[in-house]
Amino acid sequence: MTLRDLIERKRDGGHITSAEWLTFAEDVVAGRLPDYQVSALLMAIYFRGLASEETAALTDAMLRSGRTLDLRHLTLGRVDKHSTGGVGDKVSLVVAPLVAACGAVVPMVSGRGLGHTGGTLDKLESIPGFNTRLSLAAAAAQVERLGCVIIGQTGEIAPADRKLYALRDATGTVDSIPLIAASIMSKKLAEGLTGLVLDVKTGAGSFLQKLDDEVRAAQEMIALGLRHQCPVVALLTNMDSPLGIACGNANEVDEAITALKGGGPADLRELTLRLGAEMLVLAGAAGDLSAARARLEAAIESGAALEKFRAMVEAQGGDPRVCDAPGGVLRQPGLRVSYDATRDGVVQRVEPRAVGSGITAMGGGRSAMEDTVDSSVGFLITARPGDRVRRGASLATIHARDESSAAMGRAALDHAFVIGDGPIPLRPLVSHRVTIAGVETVA
Amino acid sequence: MTLRDLIERKRDGGHITSAEWLTFAEDVVAGRLPDYQVSALLMAIYFRGLASEETAALTDAMLRSGRTLDLRHLTLGRVDKHSTGGVGDKVSLVVAPLVAACGAVVPMVSGRGLGHTGGTLDKLESIPGFNTRLSLAAAAAQVERLGCVIIGQTGEIAPADRKLYALRDATGTVDSIPLIAASIMSKKLAEGLTGLVLDVKTGAGSFLQKLDDEVRAAQEMIALGLRHQCPVVALLTNMDSPLGIACGNANEVDEAITALKGGGPADLRELTLRLGAEMLVLAGAAGDLSAARARLEAAIESGAALEKFRAMVEAQGGDPRVCDAPGGVLRQPGLRVSYDATRDGVVQRVEPRAVGSGITAMGGGRSAMEDTVDSSVGFLITARPGDRVRRGASLATIHARDESSAAMGRAALDHAFVIGDGPIPLRPLVSHRVTIAGVETVA
Repeated sequence: MTLRDLIERKRDGGHITSAEWLTFAEDVVAGRLPDYQVSALLMAIYFRGLASEETAALTDAMLRSGRTLDLRHLTLGRVDKHSTGGVGDKVSLVVAPLVAACGAVVPMVSGRGLGHTGGTLDKLESIPGFNTRLSLAAAAAQVERLGCVIIGQTGEIAPADRKLYALRDATGTVDSIPLIAASIMSKKLAEGLTGLVLDVKTGAGSFLQKLDDEVRAAQEMIALGLRHQCPVVALLTNMDSPLGIACGNANEVDEAITALKGGGPADLRELTLRLGAEMLVLAGAAGDLSAARARLEAAIESGAALEKFRAMVEAQGGDPRVCDAPGGVLRQPGLRVSYDATRDGVVQRVEPRAVGSGITAMGGGRSAMEDTVDSSVGFLITARPGDRVRRGASLATIHARDESSAAMGRAALDHAFVIGDGPIPLRPLVSHRVTIAGVETVA
Repeated sequence: MTLRDLIERKRDGGHITSAEWLTFAEDVVAGRLPDYQVSALLMAIYFRGLASEETAALTDAMLRSGRTLDLRHLTLGRVDKHSTGGVGDKVSLVVAPLVAACGAVVPMVSGRGLGHTGGTLDKLESIPGFNTRLSLAAAAAQVERLGCVIIGQTGEIAPADRKLYALRDATGTVDSIPLIAASIMSKKLAEGLTGLVLDVKTGAGSFLQKLDDEVRAAQEMIALGLRHQCPVVALLTNMDSPLGIACGNANEVDEAITALKGGGPADLRELTLRLGAEMLVLAGAAGDLSAARARLEAAIESGAALEKFRAMVEAQGGDPRVCDAPGGVLRQPGLRVSYDATRDGVVQRVEPRAVGSGITAMGGGRSAMEDTVDSSVGFLITARPGDRVRRGASLATIHARDESSAAMGRAALDHAFVIGDGPIPLRPLVSHRVTIAGVETVA
């Protein structure tokens, strides 16, 4: 059976067997397959999809292409949270130490920003010295000692996925539900989890722009988790506008620290508590969501969450003084300029894609994986959809390198902000909760 | 505009502009595009198709990626015939010199065999010394002098198509009507034709297995010809069983020479006359199809057709004695064994794909473009669908290298021959004629 045969079979709507997926993943890692055939297969999958069995087999094959974190000797529940990618979303930075402070283990393998979405690793690396490139052994040791770690996908973890993701990114085959599900789950299952919470972004700033697709993606991942004794709960959350106020790497770290201290924007706090409560329940560290939420709030109140974050930063080589005086540790922008309303009215939308692309344009994100990131640039988006504003009122602050960088940021915000006349309906922060039992609408 | 943008646009059903196709073809030839992105685009085209304007623009772009035969100073009509690929189809070898002997010019750029279909160039190269790798300048000089030439697609002719075809072959994207049409027409238009006849194979042994697809493919090519002042006529012809008796390279040359002398199988003669008559009419060398047919028959009768073939063989470095004693010039098989019926009955089918794959298995065809071909191997398929046969009667003769090669041939014929009990309906040799005016059923 040649790869061309598999391409033609998938092209014609046929199925690829588990044994074939396994060989495929091994051959991808060994570099035995020409990229041009692999990309043709990916495009055929984009159009034809994968049967559930195939998605499961591909996930397994990618998982088995690498090594896994073996934390089975720990008595605590091992949980993680994965977001499908938003703008201004710094929940991981808050929730990992917060949940660890409440008696669960969080071995988080995270990603870098690409296109309009930010990446947790890029944000953490704006803390001087912070090292996200730990080996699996070092990560396991830190988890045992502290209860949490945030690292990048090393060559050890699902290397077949890593290779395929790079090709998907170059060939327009990222937005395929089975490929997204297999990619995420092959990495998350490598963490040896006993539970996973998915934050599936919905609305203007999400990768998948239709609610049906989002529910299907969640259900695919729930089914994949089930096969590996890893219960998965998904919350569908609103990404009509950026989460919180800070967008950009350094200023998102700043805002995350504020949230760990009990402050910061309400939407960031609320989403962190919702996701964190699901994690604690899945970890068996709380009996129900309201008990879990109370524990999380107490850990913020007591300072335990911030201390866990400080310990993690220190353990991973970062400057722990960031917890006390972020402004003195994080790189500061060359220029801060206000972005003002050009008319009276009501903010209708703050397009997350435009905001994210603006950060990339200013040098704070990546168009290609090899780009370097300037952590200081970004936005503080202070006006929210539904806000009534007057002409000349400040809607945001641009953090830029210089005047020309600020001009790019301003152009992006011109696209992002839509100001109209009437009031607008606001969608809830969390709209649906998807579990193995089905889809619930969240009040 | 990056290639990824074009991939995503085509993936989502959008159109690529003429200027973009032109840049694409230039970049393909210059090697500026990663194969993995090009193959993803090809697969997206496989699923989404191309609008007529896009097919035309891609054809133009591939045509313009190379050089063309400039024969505009010739007063005779310049015509060619293209077949979509059959088994046992040696019509090109007969029709090119035959039509040239009747006062038209035939500048034929032909292909090699791949998979189950044979290739005119491989057949001609079974004549010792025959050179199909002429430059365009040498080919033009021969056409001026003799009226015909048969060469391969050099690096000069539509090099973008050449590169894309190799990728399509490796990635399961050959069977796409717009890509087939653009590929064929970019090469044929490079011959500077005033008319083209298409032999579109239908039935079991054709690439495109549905009649609607075959008519659509023909109409696409007719439309492309029209844009270049090159009228195109297509005949839909029966490929339910191999054409003629001989299958394989050397023995097809032998049978073609027999046909040029007025002998050989009736179906080969009939198809040659039908296609040749269309060519002569398109060339303006005959007023209608019956007058054209009479001229062709006369040229066979008089020996003019064979003499034109002899002159072409000699001009291209081949041993002209092949015309007088093919058996003494062509490579002979190591072994000839009879393939006999295992039961009484009526031949229901002689599967061309199985026959063609058998030749490849015996070493007489190619699985990959770089394979070399043993011209001596093949079959003489003497039993035809509808023939009543007795157990033990010879159905075919296997031309093999040795016993193990013969066993592969026998296994292929076991798949090819289906013998049943009742009579079977036979389809006509030519079923439809497609022109700019529409589709006619042929009596």
